[in-house]
Amino acid sequence: MPMSTRIDSAIHAALARTRTGGSAPAKLSDALPYACTPGGARIRPTILVSVALACGDETPAITDAAAAALELMHCASLVHDDLPCFDDADTRRGKPSVHRAYSEPLAVLTGDALIILAFETLALSAASHPARAAALVALLARQSGMPHGICAGQGWESETHIDLSAYHRSKTGALFIAATQMGALSAGQDPEPWTELGARIGEAFQVADDLRDALSDETETGKPAGQDALHCRPNAVAELGVDGAVTRLKDILSGAIASIPSCPGEAALAQMMRMQAERLTPAFARTRARV
Amino acid sequence: MPMSTRIDSAIHAALARTRTGGSAPAKLSDALPYACTPGGARIRPTILVSVALACGDETPAITDAAAAALELMHCASLVHDDLPCFDDADTRRGKPSVHRAYSEPLAVLTGDALIILAFETLALSAASHPARAAALVALLARQSGMPHGICAGQGWESETHIDLSAYHRSKTGALFIAATQMGALSAGQDPEPWTELGARIGEAFQVADDLRDALSDETETGKPAGQDALHCRPNAVAELGVDGAVTRLKDILSGAIASIPSCPGEAALAQMMRMQAERLTPAFARTRARV
Repeated sequence: MPMSTRIDSAIHAALARTRTGGSAPAKLSDALPYACTPGGARIRPTILVSVALACGDETPAITDAAAAALELMHCASLVHDDLPCFDDADTRRGKPSVHRAYSEPLAVLTGDALIILAFETLALSAASHPARAAALVALLARQSGMPHGICAGQGWESETHIDLSAYHRSKTGALFIAATQMGALSAGQDPEPWTELGARIGEAFQVADDLRDALSDETETGKPAGQDALHCRPNAVAELGVDGAVTRLKDILSGAIASIPSCPGEAALAQMMRMQAERLTPAFARTRARV
Repeated sequence: MPMSTRIDSAIHAALARTRTGGSAPAKLSDALPYACTPGGARIRPTILVSVALACGDETPAITDAAAAALELMHCASLVHDDLPCFDDADTRRGKPSVHRAYSEPLAVLTGDALIILAFETLALSAASHPARAAALVALLARQSGMPHGICAGQGWESETHIDLSAYHRSKTGALFIAATQMGALSAGQDPEPWTELGARIGEAFQVADDLRDALSDETETGKPAGQDALHCRPNAVAELGVDGAVTRLKDILSGAIASIPSCPGEAALAQMMRMQAERLTPAFARTRARV
């Protein structure tokens, strides 16, 4: 089974549990899969499954649950980030954002229900290895909540003085650290040595996103462009210029590949990382880097 | 240690974890305890701990984690319910609601972070009994998310045709079912026989809340009155009249006490239930019932 099919099946199985067993509110039922599709690159669960495979993937059902949980948490954060009180984004994934398509109350509830479903998905995979499932819950919570997860990242945007390093690490890095750590843990390995790889991928992703936000248009990304400048948010392009940001992106990605811990599937994982790096680098930036 | 001290210590310990280990956004850090205090009756964790004690409370650290997690989830739901797109409540617990005191973005994030903290708290209690902790995560998720938890309850308010029984069971009943089930599970007992007690307490609470909403004023409850009529929500007082609602409340509470499963601390639990019943019944309704 191709990895993308494996990941989509896992997300689909998790979402299907929200539609079983009697009467449920129809609009909220529909908003949950709406918020998670179309999937796009599914980059976080792809990294998670790749790391698990590199570590032997001894309990694939737990890996699948972890991949789905991570993507559900990511989708939840996008739904809440798009709300009128944050980015007020009309579009996401090339279609109306959840609060535009359904309503603002349903968008708040969609995010809440997806967060809860993420943890439920992990807990329900616990039959064979309950300690591993509980550790995955703790790990996902740590990278999602306060004081250092994605909630903290968004929280920094309400502060007058922003700790930039903490801001970037929480806002973008946290779920990539979750991806590499949860991948290792799903396969029964110590997650700690995988932290650096996740952190470096997160940095790369942030710079790539900054480049995309500053230079591309809505047609290409499926979401409004220029949001960082509009909301006065810190941005690598503003700090380093376009060429400087492209150079930094390449340096970070090289460092990420070099940081892969020794494991049975190390070479294949490095190859996957190179492919993701190509994907991460916006087309115009690749052209520019060749000049 | 009095039960209220035990519960407040558990909640405090969970919240303290969001303030450790380096730089975090200060306003969001402050908003989390703000959203959980002052505690009021802490009725859900009180029921949870009472059931655990009645079942022997063999792993008190897990009971404490479960009590804190349940209350954090409840507080998260209040913060999101108060948002402008739902009840638009200016006050809660006799002070400004979280979005009025901090901001709307911080209120969304506070709810999200409290949901995540609830699951993290359960997962971190897993050291001695990981399967029990994982089952608690699954149980809390089931009673909080979709299709039958408190998110579903709120979701029903966006539907044209409401399934009233599903609506009440999800909106108010779910976290009381969580309370009795999690209490039994924390003590290593099968949660299933405890479902009915939780469901009946939930029904009682809903009727009591309807009476309070219809008849009392903001000074007494610390939150705006008349919200149900304002938002055209179903209400037992509208359906049965005040006297009918008071009679139903008393019937439900008697049934709840009768439904307590056989367990070592059955008598003490029945006594606690009678005290909670007194607390649940609004003063004017008690007077009215005596007439």
